[in-house]
Amino acid sequence: MMLRVTVMPKPGVLDPEGRAIRQALGHLGLDAVREVRAGKVMLLDVAADDPAAARALGEEAARKLLANTVIESFTVEVL
Amino acid sequence: MMLRVTVMPKPGVLDPEGRAIRQALGHLGLDAVREVRAGKVMLLDVAADDPAAARALGEEAARKLLANTVIESFTVEVL
Repeated sequence: MMLRVTVMPKPGVLDPEGRAIRQALGHLGLDAVREVRAGKVMLLDVAADDPAAARALGEEAARKLLANTVIESFTVEVL
Repeated sequence: MMLRVTVMPKPGVLDPEGRAIRQALGHLGLDAVREVRAGKVMLLDVAADDPAAARALGEEAARKLLANTVIESFTVEVL
């Protein structure tokens, strides 16, 4: 079963990567991009019998390793 | 208008980050995670009059900066 785990900086947390991307896009003439938030996405192939078990596994992986929940939030989607 | 640009390693391209994550999850007892592909996701706030213009802007940004299209594929979604 496939999961998509998305990890983003929480609102209000500084995002230097996103800011650097926005500035670089501006230098390329893409001034219409006003703000960028940069995060990570991971596709997980998990051995699970049902979507609920797969989701629980993804949430455990996110809490334990994939996200720093002090400054990042995550979502888990079953694909 | 908000866009989500997702950048993933193309199929067949080695993904050392994904492999490292899978191994680390295994060490944490999450052996049910069989494979991990790791990518990036960027939320773009763009000044555009309509979804088609916003999407075109996101695709230009992805081609010019956000993705290395030799080894990565990208998708652009209007949120």
